[in-house]
Amino acid sequence: MTRRLFILITGMPGSGKSIVVEEARNFNLPVYVMGDVVREETMRRYGVVTHELMVQTSKILREERGEEIVALKTIERTKPCERVVVIDGVRSLREVEVFKRYGEVVIVAVHASPRTRFERLLKRNRPGDPSTYEEFYKRDIVELNFGLGSVIALADVIIINEGDINETKAKAREIFKNLIEKARSRDESNC
Amino acid sequence: MTRRLFILITGMPGSGKSIVVEEARNFNLPVYVMGDVVREETMRRYGVVTHELMVQTSKILREERGEEIVALKTIERTKPCERVVVIDGVRSLREVEVFKRYGEVVIVAVHASPRTRFERLLKRNRPGDPSTYEEFYKRDIVELNFGLGSVIALADVIIINEGDINETKAKAREIFKNLIEKARSRDESNC
Repeated sequence: MTRRLFILITGMPGSGKSIVVEEARNFNLPVYVMGDVVREETMRRYGVVTHELMVQTSKILREERGEEIVALKTIERTKPCERVVVIDGVRSLREVEVFKRYGEVVIVAVHASPRTRFERLLKRNRPGDPSTYEEFYKRDIVELNFGLGSVIALADVIIINEGDINETKAKAREIFKNLIEKARSRDESNC
Repeated sequence: MTRRLFILITGMPGSGKSIVVEEARNFNLPVYVMGDVVREETMRRYGVVTHELMVQTSKILREERGEEIVALKTIERTKPCERVVVIDGVRSLREVEVFKRYGEVVIVAVHASPRTRFERLLKRNRPGDPSTYEEFYKRDIVELNFGLGSVIALADVIIINEGDINETKAKAREIFKNLIEKARSRDESNC
């Protein structure tokens, strides 16, 4: 059996991760969002989903069932015939290691400066998004305490998403195109 | 008194941090290497300097005198009249916070993929450099355990140093030029 390729997309809140994930969908790549596992578990436990409850559930899940639980449950959802799979939301090297047990891994990180990310989150203004820089910084630290910084530091590619969104999209497309071609050259089958 | 500007250069081993620091020196910016504090302390304690002893000294120093000690000792070495100062080798957000107490901070991270960094270190072959990927990965984890990943994740600018070294140098020059101009527009005096 050909090894599967997991493309792990990672980035700090407001970095523009979702823009890159969207480009993956445009290539018809299957996308699995790790947050979905946490979201459903939060709903099951509390009957309601907020950012705070998701962070709490995320911590409790890991304490109860180990650091690898969210990654393992995400892999369970993928179809074995999917040769190239995009994973949105890896937060630690422990989780990266899980995917490495199931296939080849490429880490794609999206980066923007804290100032740019803060301004974006202010504009986006989703429920649960921070409204002050202090809140924003605290949220960053929560993410970093999961180990997100180490995943970014060890990324195979970093997409800088500081300015022109079209450049970011083009860069993402180039990366996915190359990875898909590389995977196809080894194996034609996909779902 | 005008606030000082600390440009913190950071990056994983083999990322090409030294290329960027070299460009700073070409602008006649004063450069302080945080490792120098550790190197001298290692020499004082053991009479010899190896990579392993430096990592050990680095840990012991922080245990004995707090997480901030290397940053504080580095700041002590700078001259108050130096308005724009380059710091090489910040390893944690705790250290970043120290510099923020003494002035404005801009974090410049240098990034290359693990594969590229490993190949560079093999070629460089400095005493203490890893010779296998396992050794290389372990060394990375030591750096990340200090908190280096979080500093990279919160960088204001990331310089991608994957291919053409001249592009990297040009990018570094552009960044230093802008930062120096910004600092000069507020205050003409420098040592």
